[in-house]
Amino acid sequence: MDALRLKQILEEVKSGDLPVDEALSSLRTLPYDDIGCAKLDLHRGIRTGFPEVVFCQGKTDEQAVDIVKRLAGHHTKVLATRVAPEVAGKIAAAVDGCTYHSLARILVVDKPGEKPDHAATDGRYVMVLCAGTADISVAEEAAITAESMGSRVERSYDVGVAGLHRLLDQRDRIMQANVLVVVAGMEGALPSVVGGMVSCPVIAVPTSVGYGASFGGLAALLAMLNSCAAGVAVMNIDNGFGAGYFAHLVNR
Amino acid sequence: MDALRLKQILEEVKSGDLPVDEALSSLRTLPYDDIGCAKLDLHRGIRTGFPEVVFCQGKTDEQAVDIVKRLAGHHTKVLATRVAPEVAGKIAAAVDGCTYHSLARILVVDKPGEKPDHAATDGRYVMVLCAGTADISVAEEAAITAESMGSRVERSYDVGVAGLHRLLDQRDRIMQANVLVVVAGMEGALPSVVGGMVSCPVIAVPTSVGYGASFGGLAALLAMLNSCAAGVAVMNIDNGFGAGYFAHLVNR
Amino acid sequence: MDALRLKQILEEVKSGDLPVDEALSSLRTLPYDDIGCAKLDLHRGIRTGFPEVVFCQGKTDEQAVDIVKRLAGHHTKVLATRVAPEVAGKIAAAVDGCTYHSLARILVVDKPGEKPDHAATDGRYVMVLCAGTADISVAEEAAITAESMGSRVERSYDVGVAGLHRLLDQRDRIMQANVLVVVAGMEGALPSVVGGMVSCPVIAVPTSVGYGASFGGLAALLAMLNSCAAGVAVMNIDNGFGAGYFAHLVNR
Amino acid sequence: MDALRLKQILEEVKSGDLPVDEALSSLRTLPYDDIGCAKLDLHRGIRTGFPEVVFCQGKTDEQAVDIVKRLAGHHTKVLATRVAPEVAGKIAAAVDGCTYHSLARILVVDKPGEKPDHAATDGRYVMVLCAGTADISVAEEAAITAESMGSRVERSYDVGVAGLHRLLDQRDRIMQANVLVVVAGMEGALPSVVGGMVSCPVIAVPTSVGYGASFGGLAALLAMLNSCAAGVAVMNIDNGFGAGYFAHLVNR
Amino acid sequence: MDALRLKQILEEVKSGDLPVDEALSSLRTLPYDDIGCAKLDLHRGIRTGFPEVVFCQGKTDEQAVDIVKRLAGHHTKVLATRVAPEVAGKIAAAVDGCTYHSLARILVVDKPGEKPDHAATDGRYVMVLCAGTADISVAEEAAITAESMGSRVERSYDVGVAGLHRLLDQRDRIMQANVLVVVAGMEGALPSVVGGMVSCPVIAVPTSVGYGASFGGLAALLAMLNSCAAGVAVMNIDNGFGAGYFAHLVNR
Amino acid sequence: MDALRLKQILEEVKSGDLPVDEALSSLRTLPYDDIGCAKLDLHRGIRTGFPEVVFCQGKTDEQAVDIVKRLAGHHTKVLATRVAPEVAGKIAAAVDGCTYHSLARILVVDKPGEKPDHAATDGRYVMVLCAGTADISVAEEAAITAESMGSRVERSYDVGVAGLHRLLDQRDRIMQANVLVVVAGMEGALPSVVGGMVSCPVIAVPTSVGYGASFGGLAALLAMLNSCAAGVAVMNIDNGFGAGYFAHLVNR
Amino acid sequence: MDALRLKQILEEVKSGDLPVDEALSSLRTLPYDDIGCAKLDLHRGIRTGFPEVVFCQGKTDEQAVDIVKRLAGHHTKVLATRVAPEVAGKIAAAVDGCTYHSLARILVVDKPGEKPDHAATDGRYVMVLCAGTADISVAEEAAITAESMGSRVERSYDVGVAGLHRLLDQRDRIMQANVLVVVAGMEGALPSVVGGMVSCPVIAVPTSVGYGASFGGLAALLAMLNSCAAGVAVMNIDNGFGAGYFAHLVNR
Amino acid sequence: MDALRLKQILEEVKSGDLPVDEALSSLRTLPYDDIGCAKLDLHRGIRTGFPEVVFCQGKTDEQAVDIVKRLAGHHTKVLATRVAPEVAGKIAAAVDGCTYHSLARILVVDKPGEKPDHAATDGRYVMVLCAGTADISVAEEAAITAESMGSRVERSYDVGVAGLHRLLDQRDRIMQANVLVVVAGMEGALPSVVGGMVSCPVIAVPTSVGYGASFGGLAALLAMLNSCAAGVAVMNIDNGFGAGYFAHLVNR
Repeated sequence: MDALRLKQILEEVKSGDLPVDEALSSLRTLPYDDIGCAKLDLHRGIRTGFPEVVFCQGKTDEQAVDIVKRLAGHHTKVLATRVAPEVAGKIAAAVDGCTYHSLARILVVDKPGEKPDHAATDGRYVMVLCAGTADISVAEEAAITAESMGSRVERSYDVGVAGLHRLLDQRDRIMQANVLVVVAGMEGALPSVVGGMVSCPVIAVPTSVGYGASFGGLAALLAMLNSCAAGVAVMNIDNGFGAGYFAHLVNR
Repeated sequence: MDALRLKQILEEVKSGDLPVDEALSSLRTLPYDDIGCAKLDLHRGIRTGFPEVVFCQGKTDEQAVDIVKRLAGHHTKVLATRVAPEVAGKIAAAVDGCTYHSLARILVVDKPGEKPDHAATDGRYVMVLCAGTADISVAEEAAITAESMGSRVERSYDVGVAGLHRLLDQRDRIMQANVLVVVAGMEGALPSVVGGMVSCPVIAVPTSVGYGASFGGLAALLAMLNSCAAGVAVMNIDNGFGAGYFAHLVNR
Repeated sequence: MDALRLKQILEEVKSGDLPVDEALSSLRTLPYDDIGCAKLDLHRGIRTGFPEVVFCQGKTDEQAVDIVKRLAGHHTKVLATRVAPEVAGKIAAAVDGCTYHSLARILVVDKPGEKPDHAATDGRYVMVLCAGTADISVAEEAAITAESMGSRVERSYDVGVAGLHRLLDQRDRIMQANVLVVVAGMEGALPSVVGGMVSCPVIAVPTSVGYGASFGGLAALLAMLNSCAAGVAVMNIDNGFGAGYFAHLVNR
Repeated sequence: MDALRLKQILEEVKSGDLPVDEALSSLRTLPYDDIGCAKLDLHRGIRTGFPEVVFCQGKTDEQAVDIVKRLAGHHTKVLATRVAPEVAGKIAAAVDGCTYHSLARILVVDKPGEKPDHAATDGRYVMVLCAGTADISVAEEAAITAESMGSRVERSYDVGVAGLHRLLDQRDRIMQANVLVVVAGMEGALPSVVGGMVSCPVIAVPTSVGYGASFGGLAALLAMLNSCAAGVAVMNIDNGFGAGYFAHLVNR
Repeated sequence: MDALRLKQILEEVKSGDLPVDEALSSLRTLPYDDIGCAKLDLHRGIRTGFPEVVFCQGKTDEQAVDIVKRLAGHHTKVLATRVAPEVAGKIAAAVDGCTYHSLARILVVDKPGEKPDHAATDGRYVMVLCAGTADISVAEEAAITAESMGSRVERSYDVGVAGLHRLLDQRDRIMQANVLVVVAGMEGALPSVVGGMVSCPVIAVPTSVGYGASFGGLAALLAMLNSCAAGVAVMNIDNGFGAGYFAHLVNR
Repeated sequence: MDALRLKQILEEVKSGDLPVDEALSSLRTLPYDDIGCAKLDLHRGIRTGFPEVVFCQGKTDEQAVDIVKRLAGHHTKVLATRVAPEVAGKIAAAVDGCTYHSLARILVVDKPGEKPDHAATDGRYVMVLCAGTADISVAEEAAITAESMGSRVERSYDVGVAGLHRLLDQRDRIMQANVLVVVAGMEGALPSVVGGMVSCPVIAVPTSVGYGASFGGLAALLAMLNSCAAGVAVMNIDNGFGAGYFAHLVNR
Repeated sequence: MDALRLKQILEEVKSGDLPVDEALSSLRTLPYDDIGCAKLDLHRGIRTGFPEVVFCQGKTDEQAVDIVKRLAGHHTKVLATRVAPEVAGKIAAAVDGCTYHSLARILVVDKPGEKPDHAATDGRYVMVLCAGTADISVAEEAAITAESMGSRVERSYDVGVAGLHRLLDQRDRIMQANVLVVVAGMEGALPSVVGGMVSCPVIAVPTSVGYGASFGGLAALLAMLNSCAAGVAVMNIDNGFGAGYFAHLVNR
Repeated sequence: MDALRLKQILEEVKSGDLPVDEALSSLRTLPYDDIGCAKLDLHRGIRTGFPEVVFCQGKTDEQAVDIVKRLAGHHTKVLATRVAPEVAGKIAAAVDGCTYHSLARILVVDKPGEKPDHAATDGRYVMVLCAGTADISVAEEAAITAESMGSRVERSYDVGVAGLHRLLDQRDRIMQANVLVVVAGMEGALPSVVGGMVSCPVIAVPTSVGYGASFGGLAALLAMLNSCAAGVAVMNIDNGFGAGYFAHLVNR
């Protein structure tokens, strides 16, 4: 509801084209869809051009199916994250055009005929790195998210700091990236090392991979927040989706 | 030391233009300057085109002066952060071209004749918001940093969520920004509200403003990490410099 | 056992109507019912006119059934909270007049012929808001509790701060409420935003909805305790019952 | 800016009494006063009838004086909290009608000729209890706040649970209160004991009084959040102001 | 191995009654029994007259059976704590004289013909209180432990502070106890209230009963450590055994 | 106010010796002395025979002097703890019979002519151990407290576990004690080692001595709560007074 | 890739024996093996002579089997840690020469014909101690690791500080060790006591054994970090592997 | 008091050369020196050949002087750590042969004529690295400690991971070290990176350098405990002394 639209409404009221009650109503009615358990923010999708995103964790299977179905009716692309395989099955049975990425636990609904517009980001790409094999699921959540939004994505996994040569060997691809997503659990040192090598923004994602004094990812989270390298910003523990989303905003 | 440079060295060795020992040496010698208490990373500045940055907290006055002086000899611009007024005085006495921003506690050294190249970012600007009066110092640290690196910066302070109309009134300027830095202490809610309004990346900075259960900024930090708005990444508590630096990388 | 009752007993002792031993006994006997595993506080219900409440979590099924049964014998209304469906079944099989609210996990026992006295609160109503779909269960615990105690309750769910227009659209109903219960997980920002819009008391309930650095609701709890809006008080994580109870005390 | 006002503006636009540009402006101009370091929310005071409140901690002396002065120009009553004695002196020198409550660290500015309207709350009163002598400063912050807003306030201090008879002796006054503020440090047990005695809402305020494992008030805060008595809501550590404000909202 | 015994050995060596090698051996051999997975401290039982105690949590079923069996061969009484029902069954099948207290999860092995010597504590008794029904299991662990060691034990359960009259009604029995064990979860306020009523030592046991901000018993633990009543000492969360053991040491 | 006294009052009411109003009053009047900033619990001292105790930390100098003075008028012995030297001076100037123990920061007021009745505990003694030189101040707080209450106290300081022979050398004195107070900072291991050597109760006191990951005594506190030796109960960090008080209750 | 190898390559380039492109490639190709989910660091094994180690927790069964299989093709010895019995079965079915240590949950793959070279450490041995029966699994992880790497290992289990004579009885073996691994849960006091007895390095390993305020091993971890004995370094909670590995490095 | 000595005493008793009482006394008398505030463990120094160490933090100036003086009378070398400059001055005035290392805050007392026996470690050296300029004080504490004990020490400071080339440039010296001490604050990533480069033991020391979410060194501590590189053990925050001591034990 920007100033332009507001002025236009007022002009129509002045000219009598728009009755006061209707103006009142349109000034008060906002573009969302109330389906009982949720108020779907249809306006956001329209405004930003991004796919709608449903966070499925903590929702019942029925709520997840209902919400995805409803959104798929309004949008050319819908993302659902943290989707367990059995929930993915239920959604796919109810909605056309579903693709399920099991490692990333993401389900994407594409309107038939639509295709990703990677061209939109030219040659610019997001690069997703992760420190260990156990971090791959979070890294893939980031990668699939950015790809679904239209970014080209490069990946390099298992490049943790205890074997620096594996990381240094990827130096060229890393240094030419437009923005980096760096995923690590345990001591979370990878973003600091990478941050010192590049001049593009680094989005650090701590994971809950580890045990004992990792305290569910707290160790990695604190390490990343205290990174001695400038140009590093941090996401919530295991929040691959947020990192992929943020990376696309920067890459766009 | 990229692949190109490496190839060139090898070619020179092959042609005999470069003796093996010299090649060996240049492959092993790295561009930093060891002044005893610090190994100044001269290479980074050259490579990225960014000003050098000195974090003064935890350094003795002498170390701060020495390091800034040395860097000023190699670079057209040097930034020093967390500079207490009396330290700023000592540096200014020893180095030419110092400007001290007292609210931000940042000291900038500009080589005579150099000027900021804001043109580099065209019309694109970083917008810095903060929730309360007590957050202004951190917000200014972000703003001055981004400006010193060459970004145009817009500011809007004291727009906390308890008086939403103050925030909504800035909606146009906020929505046209290229990247946002949002600074807040206490409950740290501002980035979530702003993140829901815009489609550009939001860099959230928790501050230590508050008391009791704010636990030195922990409450705001956790809130920002758990933001329900997509597109929000988080910096360390009170890390205005990091936010300004990151914002410029995105804005560039 | 107030001063009036005490005086009356003493008068009766003086007049000889009440033997000393009986007086002693009644001064020492307090109105509760010891059923072995619990000492049921019958006096509280009589004194306050509120239904008795049984917190079922941590009790064995048998204890839950026994306690509800015994209380139902003394009171016109009994509430049991945190009741798993299978426990609800066992109670309903043993006690007449049970209604089970499965979303809220509350079981209410009404003495036949009794009806809620919503009239008691005239037009005044408690309004219950929640930020996301996953918070509904806690919100319903609050709403059912307040309703069972006799308050009129209005609800508006999924109005989180990342889509402010959904919230602002409810502004009239929110501003006319007598007291608000605001439920949110993740960053817990909703109470601060709502608190800045209204002049009635806001009871904030953090939920354990979230992951990673939400630390089981700690992030939302800290955020609410640090709310920059005046007029916000906070309940324990997931304590919908406490919020509904408190809200009715205010609304009464 | 409620619906009524909105309709009225639209009617005036329709009738031609209000030019579109002026309407646009008044729809977009919000009632606050930007004094550089702060955006004063004048609208809130007008809307709610409550005094304006300035939280002085974390502000410079100059900012505190400026803000109080500006607000005193618009309102019949202004409250400033967390005011150190020397700051109070500076404000009093710049603004007429100041009263400084040193125990509570609150400064009140009354417009000459105005007087508190305690009558507004009839016989209903807020009762403020505290557990120990060291908690009195927080208790007074609550009491002065509620009194300044127009509530009658009763006090009973040093009634901690280790000497129950001191508390029980106040039973009548406590049970006839309309709302209670209960302040305690250390183990924070007082709200639970009081909560079991009364049927009115209890606002619990943990204080940072204690040492060792009180961790700056954390022990009392957690205890109060976990109170086994229903009807207890909790404020931030040492937040006497918030408790007094909330209590007045309930008592009104 | 006290000084007396040492002197005696030396005398025997001097007199030649004890060869040097045997003396050496007996000075170095200490009274424990190494069964591979454990070194059973037989000496402690002999020295203190107390039953041996086996903490079964974290041990395999086989280890638990082996250790109890071995100890039962040396002692007139053995206690095993944290014994799951199925483990109790396995032990009872392998060792004579077992009694299993299912609420307390304690298994006691009595040598046939031995009887508890409660007479040893004359009329003095340990009193065990608990705040709620869900705390009974920990309270029983304390009570059974003290009884097994020879103390007379009185119990009063579900006397939490939210219904003070239930507690005050037990005042006589409480005030005549020789030592108190007070068990409570949630806000852990009971020990402070009881501690203010009595002049005997109070052993406070926090339990993990609660949810949300009880953080597994942390809230109750901190509250008890910060008790404003003198004469209160604290055990680990859920450590009923330790409290019962300590209480018997005092009561003896 | 025990049952006997209650019966007696009732008998007097019955016989007409006590008018109803006076009975009412004496049933309601409780023995404390309200001096404004504090309600002095005179009854407790009378009932238990223990000296009154004033915790001075967090009180103003004036409050400390007033309270000690008032209590000294009613009691033969008064203890004040956490008394800074300058406060001790002010109290001593206002009250007769003061002795200040500077290491323990305890001030004792003895009524002229009264003497400690150590005989009351026969040969039984409390033994106070501490691990390091820096723990002595807390150990002395415990020792002076127990002595002031009438217990004989033995001390052995600087017997930390890193030099076991220093501890073992004290074995006889330790094993003959009636109750032990064991004070330690850093890793807090001493109570576990001592607890395994003796059969009397051990009161463990963590201190804030240490740095880094001792987190103000948290490390020692947690260690003591998790002691593998039975018979160990724990006090708050640095709470020497509480330990001495508890020890005397046991030793009595 | 050491300086020698670098010089050699350069010499070959100079002499024309090595074409520039091949040199470039060998300077950039690093010795690891990318199998998709992991980049196996083959170089490390070759360089250090140590067996390769696979941490199986958090990997899928398939990943674990693949990685062990691949490494077994390059190395004479492979270690896999945190191997559940069923995973061990799958690996053993796919790879020759597997031995599974079930207590330690370690699987070792030996190339046929290879034997451990304990001789390499002469008479020097690592000694592994643990405090309780429940700590044995972590202790064995350390012991098997050091043995697999070639160290002689001595063990002494269940020697916790609550029965010091069990520990002191092992004094000779302990004092002659070259390096100690000391494993303990609960209060974690054993390393401090042992550290005071010996002059060799002590590697302390906290375990998650305990309950309540052990907070998953945090209590033991903090205790060990704060050890008053010099010469104690600490591993992550339950990290027996790390301790065994470190101990071998010292013992070698 | 080893077995040999024990046998010898027994033989002397048998032969009558040693009276029983003298034997008893020497078996019970242990070699320490009780100076009131401390029991100096003279035996330890004699046994291990290491200098005695006095931790001065938390001791009064007088205690520090007394203890150093006394120890200097028995030993050829004494170390005092955490010595403030003014305390160092007082000690140097009272004891001969003092050298004060101000950066490390260590004071060393050498008996005249004695010299360090670096030869004892042949060519083997300890290498001390630190990440930033602000970590130098802790690094020096480690270096001076190891040197005072007789190790050769190499240093390389300001080699943090954000400028990897500074670290890689030191690779040769690092890889030839016998044991490494790696000191870092903030995110504490350096030990992981170094640990992946070397095959010798790495002792990691977190420092309290940082701000905000470094929480006094907690972030670095957790990172180091969770290091993905094997062969890394961890010291308490800022414990340079412990690291230097441990390193010398390994290097010896």
